[in-house]
Amino acid sequence: MRQVFHELIINTEGQGLYNFTSQTLDWLDKEKVNNGILNINILHTSASLTIQENADPDVLEDLKIFFNKLVPMNEKLYKHKTEGVDDMPAHIKSVLTNNQLTLSVKDGKIILGTWQGLYLFEHRLEHQSRIISHHFFGK
Amino acid sequence: MRQVFHELIINTEGQGLYNFTSQTLDWLDKEKVNNGILNINILHTSASLTIQENADPDVLEDLKIFFNKLVPMNEKLYKHKTEGVDDMPAHIKSVLTNNQLTLSVKDGKIILGTWQGLYLFEHRLEHQSRIISHHFFGK
Amino acid sequence: MRQVFHELIINTEGQGLYNFTSQTLDWLDKEKVNNGILNINILHTSASLTIQENADPDVLEDLKIFFNKLVPMNEKLYKHKTEGVDDMPAHIKSVLTNNQLTLSVKDGKIILGTWQGLYLFEHRLEHQSRIISHHFFGK
Repeated sequence: MRQVFHELIINTEGQGLYNFTSQTLDWLDKEKVNNGILNINILHTSASLTIQENADPDVLEDLKIFFNKLVPMNEKLYKHKTEGVDDMPAHIKSVLTNNQLTLSVKDGKIILGTWQGLYLFEHRLEHQSRIISHHFFGK
Repeated sequence: MRQVFHELIINTEGQGLYNFTSQTLDWLDKEKVNNGILNINILHTSASLTIQENADPDVLEDLKIFFNKLVPMNEKLYKHKTEGVDDMPAHIKSVLTNNQLTLSVKDGKIILGTWQGLYLFEHRLEHQSRIISHHFFGK
Repeated sequence: MRQVFHELIINTEGQGLYNFTSQTLDWLDKEKVNNGILNINILHTSASLTIQENADPDVLEDLKIFFNKLVPMNEKLYKHKTEGVDDMPAHIKSVLTNNQLTLSVKDGKIILGTWQGLYLFEHRLEHQSRIISHHFFGK
């Protein structure tokens, strides 16, 4: 059994979903893994991870719009607003989605459906540098 | 250490929660596993997985109703509507819930509370055939 | 490879987020683990787990308020109300958040961001005793 660790950095430029599937696959290829668990965690509480459709970009736009309606950027609604109007909504959206993805790897490939991609969901308005921890455990 | 993989197929007939706990337990029994991690992923982006109460069917009905109110099936609200009125709402509900469950197995049993069951949450209106990937890693 | 299991009990006194990071770290220290997967599951369907900011308590208060607005404690809205006005809303909030956290451990430390803490999110109004299963798998 082997365990390998990796930090993927994604620079974001505003709210939305950023597809990082190919970076993750490239790393797995480089590590020449076979079967195991791939545990992915985002090390922030104002951005999150999700698996979503990788075909129509309208899906990503609709997701962004839906979450902005559900969790309004209105400072009157929140006590915590240290970092601005998008601060507390970003934390709430993070709780409503996911901090992590745990994936299965078989014969060197992540088990994913045809239309599934791995996404970082950025909830802050300004540029951010996000760390996504990767941990493969298997053989 | 062993790793075993399995695909469970669930045929759904409309929105709602489908309990697949017994199918998962049957597979673990057949594989004669002892201790390890059971990683379960749904290979679709318009249905999801959740752990919920296995006793009162009203809980499942209330969940379906709540999510339909929260994410209305109204085409005017979304750009992505290729597959109909339930298309984009299904993607959103999938992001609001989970694509995966990572469970612990001890002495051949999944560690679950008395009232917990494993559910597929179908968000599409028409018949679907859903693949739920199972991966046991342990001994 | 080793597998060790632990049950952490948290007594809650009403709705809100309870930080259990230090209890989890203490257990890992005691077990002298090195690298592996830490799988954490809550054995209930009316409370959940989340990773959130560990600095400003206003974040925790805003989260509680947001979820109470999103999922109103109004019995007219639900069929399932056996255990009172907070019963069905607790199940819904549990589905909207997480039952589990899967974390990576490297050199004896959980891979977490500086501002991340592990929280139990209690959705019931009265005192509850909650079991959080811990399972470390690694070396």
